[in-house]
Amino acid sequence: MAGKGLSLDEKYELIIRNLEEVIGGEDLKELLKSKKEVSVYWGTMPTGSISIAYFFPMLKIADFLKAGLKVKILIADLHAVLDGVPWNLVDKRYDYYKHAITVILKTIGVDIKKLEFAKGSEFQLKPEYMYDVLKLSSISSVNDATRAASEAVKTARVGNVKVSGLVYPLMQTLDEQYLDVDIQFAGTDQRKIQVYAREFLPKIGYKRRIELMNPMIRGLVGKQMSSSIEATKIDLLNDEETVKKKIRGAECVTGEVDNGLMALLRYLVFNMNEDKKKFVIKRDKKYGGDLIYDSYEGVEKDFKSKKLHPLDLKNSLADEINLILKNFRDDKKLKELYKKAYA
Amino acid sequence: MAGKGLSLDEKYELIIRNLEEVIGGEDLKELLKSKKEVSVYWGTMPTGSISIAYFFPMLKIADFLKAGLKVKILIADLHAVLDGVPWNLVDKRYDYYKHAITVILKTIGVDIKKLEFAKGSEFQLKPEYMYDVLKLSSISSVNDATRAASEAVKTARVGNVKVSGLVYPLMQTLDEQYLDVDIQFAGTDQRKIQVYAREFLPKIGYKRRIELMNPMIRGLVGKQMSSSIEATKIDLLNDEETVKKKIRGAECVTGEVDNGLMALLRYLVFNMNEDKKKFVIKRDKKYGGDLIYDSYEGVEKDFKSKKLHPLDLKNSLADEINLILKNFRDDKKLKELYKKAYA
Repeated sequence: MAGKGLSLDEKYELIIRNLEEVIGGEDLKELLKSKKEVSVYWGTMPTGSISIAYFFPMLKIADFLKAGLKVKILIADLHAVLDGVPWNLVDKRYDYYKHAITVILKTIGVDIKKLEFAKGSEFQLKPEYMYDVLKLSSISSVNDATRAASEAVKTARVGNVKVSGLVYPLMQTLDEQYLDVDIQFAGTDQRKIQVYAREFLPKIGYKRRIELMNPMIRGLVGKQMSSSIEATKIDLLNDEETVKKKIRGAECVTGEVDNGLMALLRYLVFNMNEDKKKFVIKRDKKYGGDLIYDSYEGVEKDFKSKKLHPLDLKNSLADEINLILKNFRDDKKLKELYKKAYA
Repeated sequence: MAGKGLSLDEKYELIIRNLEEVIGGEDLKELLKSKKEVSVYWGTMPTGSISIAYFFPMLKIADFLKAGLKVKILIADLHAVLDGVPWNLVDKRYDYYKHAITVILKTIGVDIKKLEFAKGSEFQLKPEYMYDVLKLSSISSVNDATRAASEAVKTARVGNVKVSGLVYPLMQTLDEQYLDVDIQFAGTDQRKIQVYAREFLPKIGYKRRIELMNPMIRGLVGKQMSSSIEATKIDLLNDEETVKKKIRGAECVTGEVDNGLMALLRYLVFNMNEDKKKFVIKRDKKYGGDLIYDSYEGVEKDFKSKKLHPLDLKNSLADEINLILKNFRDDKKLKELYKKAYA
């Protein structure tokens, strides 16, 4: 069973490994000791189709599940509607997201018995929740909320922020309470909201939560995988040729490792089935023959020393990604749900 | 019956007389013509005890009732709780406010058959209402909301405003829709919220409302009657001596009419039972004998020319106010409700 056979220290290390930041590490150690089932939530908004970037938080969620945590994934349908998704489509997006996330976790190969999904609209419009939103809003200055929202809400000047941009951090804070979890897990772009949550939840009489932050992984072109520009992201349902094309088109300068492809290799490929991972570069004998790596560091070393050429890296990486995505292409239900969600 | 026997023009004039501003006058004329029962709301927050300043909006509400409008008075208990009134007291404040307002209207002498009270908490936490709050918040910039709140929310700099200060104008806007009224009536300090309401309600698919604004009447000391400094306001339940003391202590320079006492005389005393109003200054023969006025203008003229002395004005005004407040002192139920509300 998940988490069984692990010492407290091993559980703790599994939970926090690869994270960018942990707020409340001591609280977490204490909870792991004293509480039978420690729980964590991660939230996402069901808008566009799901890219391969979802593997990054899911690999962490796999760690949580392996460590015996109960995991709740909040699909924030209400926020999606407020963001412009029509009511009649949002339930279909919810279904698509739920299934796609499940397939990702199965592809990673983790037991999802302790995984639950939650729908925002089912609790975020309840009177007691909204009362707490108003209560938080009456003790939070516009400055507090603007600071909390500053990275998550994409805008430079206060004047352009919508009022909702200031209300959402308050809601995300209350989600911790209303989902009844001990931990919030999110990308570092949510850091300031999590800091706000940890400070303000106790001010209205609720316990403070542990805040875990995943590093932001850079995309194939530009800075973040989550960019909406098509070329920067590989969709779960992209066909083999599209994947090859996107990877071939990605930025990758000989000898320089700070790019999206190396990030994919390091954080995705080498994190999948980590124990028995081999990354193979197939090369003709006249170019030096196959290269076989069992760690990211080996690839990085050869790439830096220009022993490994970008084109060879791209071809092998595309094969690996296509292998990972096979599960999705073969999933008839996922394709059907996708069609309905984006009709 | 109220409004019977009045022409459309007479109704319109009665509704808008003494107002500082009307937005949507043509809409109002149209509605009076086409709609059987036109309705208006005015809102108040049940926090402190009620001062004589409440007579000013109530005299307008008396006009609305006389013109045949249906009047809804919103007692914003939810806002009071968010403002710090404990839940266990807020219902008692509601009862006190409701009864006090009823007694004011009876003292003014108007038929209250078409008057209704509404409680904020009964509809402002409903899912559909809160959804609309979030919807409005997602199309309103922080600048829009700050502008709307700027006068009503007492603070100079954006940074000090609470998030609730930006959410309340949105709620006040939706109150028009959820109370199902045609008109919002408020003090000019709410002007920017009313302007926002008129602009933004149609953006989420609801009809724009007519906005009526009452002038702010100045207090006995300083600028506004609504100030929280005790000396500036006469409470409905003040005894005769307290009233005399407060009026005697009020600013009133010989020959200068821009003060709170003249405002009380003009907007309260002369607006009560306006048809048969006589304002009498009792004076000894050696000081020139009694003065009898049947209009405010007469008093103002004599005061300016120093024919009427501040002390004589104060004494007579105190008598008038005490006469008006007799109804409240004699009302056992009001006293009981007050005790419970401010225990």
